[in-house]
Amino acid sequence: MNTHTSHDSIRAVQWLGDRLRLLDQRRLPAEEIWFDSVNSDDVTRAIRDLAVRGAPAIGIAAAWGVVLAAKGGEDLASAMATLRAARPTAVNLMWALDRMKSRVDAGADAAALEREAQAIQDEDLAANRHMGELGASLIESGSHVMTHCNTGSLATAGYGTALGVIRAGVEAGRIDQVYAGETRPWQQGARLTMWELVRDGIPAKLIADSAASHLMKDGKVKWVIVGADRIAANGDTANKIGTYQLAIAARHHGVKFMVVAPSTTVDMATASGDDIEIELRDATELLSVSGTRTVIEGAEAWNPVFDVTPAELIDAIVTERGVILKPDEEQMRIMFP
Amino acid sequence: MNTHTSHDSIRAVQWLGDRLRLLDQRRLPAEEIWFDSVNSDDVTRAIRDLAVRGAPAIGIAAAWGVVLAAKGGEDLASAMATLRAARPTAVNLMWALDRMKSRVDAGADAAALEREAQAIQDEDLAANRHMGELGASLIESGSHVMTHCNTGSLATAGYGTALGVIRAGVEAGRIDQVYAGETRPWQQGARLTMWELVRDGIPAKLIADSAASHLMKDGKVKWVIVGADRIAANGDTANKIGTYQLAIAARHHGVKFMVVAPSTTVDMATASGDDIEIELRDATELLSVSGTRTVIEGAEAWNPVFDVTPAELIDAIVTERGVILKPDEEQMRIMFP
Repeated sequence: MNTHTSHDSIRAVQWLGDRLRLLDQRRLPAEEIWFDSVNSDDVTRAIRDLAVRGAPAIGIAAAWGVVLAAKGGEDLASAMATLRAARPTAVNLMWALDRMKSRVDAGADAAALEREAQAIQDEDLAANRHMGELGASLIESGSHVMTHCNTGSLATAGYGTALGVIRAGVEAGRIDQVYAGETRPWQQGARLTMWELVRDGIPAKLIADSAASHLMKDGKVKWVIVGADRIAANGDTANKIGTYQLAIAARHHGVKFMVVAPSTTVDMATASGDDIEIELRDATELLSVSGTRTVIEGAEAWNPVFDVTPAELIDAIVTERGVILKPDEEQMRIMFP
Repeated sequence: MNTHTSHDSIRAVQWLGDRLRLLDQRRLPAEEIWFDSVNSDDVTRAIRDLAVRGAPAIGIAAAWGVVLAAKGGEDLASAMATLRAARPTAVNLMWALDRMKSRVDAGADAAALEREAQAIQDEDLAANRHMGELGASLIESGSHVMTHCNTGSLATAGYGTALGVIRAGVEAGRIDQVYAGETRPWQQGARLTMWELVRDGIPAKLIADSAASHLMKDGKVKWVIVGADRIAANGDTANKIGTYQLAIAARHHGVKFMVVAPSTTVDMATASGDDIEIELRDATELLSVSGTRTVIEGAEAWNPVFDVTPAELIDAIVTERGVILKPDEEQMRIMFP
């Protein structure tokens, strides 16, 4: 996988007919290590331990986990419950499992479940391409843009959500320069987004998350473009920790703020961001860097890994169904009835 | 130095009569390594390479560098020019060197310069204690507060500026909980501020810099308290990268924002923040963590290490001369004529 010709050649989630091959995103960019899951427990572990991450990719991997469970004669109800509990915030995980469950309940055999998982994966890629075009059309020529976390090929079936818009915007000559926040504590921006951008030859610079406002001051950044882990019925959006802070900074500077996610990320059953469970992860993720303790023993840390950006700070929500400008519950209900 | 009894026992800058002993802040918290400077070049290197950091501590170290130059028969003009160029943003460095130069120009001998450097150091400690009381008096009982970077004993002659206010606020029972941003890329908050807070037994939690807004949302944080590297004549304040973003987030949430710095940090010759030179450091500081490359080869980064918070986002500037609420040029000119 060291050579590539197109702008989305990496497929981090690969179904091989009897096993699921995943690119271990914890090892990037130092190493490209692929590993195979042969049962649903393997997939649960890969999701929980962040070997696969990104809301759409998590959903797709979970669907393949159900296929592995069916092929291996596992108890499907139990396998799906375990997969569902692997991470709490990304609604795509619940959505993909619900979709697989409805096929299971309808008596689908392993081959039928395999086709369903493949459809989920294929639809995600198609949605990303369509969102790329829709989102890019909002961006004026010559723009600098900023993104956060990783929402690219690694986080999806391919191409990406926010990073798909950036790819499309660069191809259309609308985006001149990309800035990626490093995204503490997991460094998805530093490790993964920069990896994708450099491989694609897209002009990109890494910044500290806390440098975003200083960057926006010069007026060149026109859009902040991010993905989502869950979009509530009123447009409130849960995404990687730091997204909310970027949205506040963007509004302060007159920079526009775009959320890009497939419709599977929309959860109309969640009324607002107040109802979204925010995953707290272990303090050790902040107390150590690359396995080396950086903070005095005895120190505590508070490590929420998502936050909620209220709809009023969002200028555009882009899904494959279309663009909602200045999202609110009324517009959301029209597009997601 | 592993035991301590008071709330500011660490003296990171120690004059030993013929040498300057510095605590190497790059090695904390893993190791407490002290090293001696015996001439002005040693001190310049310690400042430039961040072994000593924090605007007040840099100024004090530079003053001792002049004393070493005088004792060693160095060319004083050359030594002072080299020390002055070691870091561009902290005005305390220029101030301390100007004060030493005026003594040199007046014909002071090495012993007189030694007394002058000691006075600079003693006055800084006294200023910190006074600022601690002044700043703490602004904080209502039961507050949670947030800070950024390190402004404690390690950054000053002792006690600290913003961290001095926090120490005084905790002692006075006004502050219940402290949150420290880790302060990428150098992690001064994670490595140094948490080290001081845990040693002092102050209830403290480390957060990712990008989690500050999510934290503020719950309404418990009442003040963000930070130091400064330079305060312009209109109150605009240069400080560690990320400070400006915190100020925007604080205003958005109705959280108050306090800048704490000795009057030596005020530069009335600089009209506004637009005139402050912002130090850009090497991209490698963002591309590697603890010496390990974390970003794909070929990647670029933008690494400004300070930013400017405009006066209109600052609720209080605290110096040893007093408190300025809602700072502007008129009030600044009255307190710093």
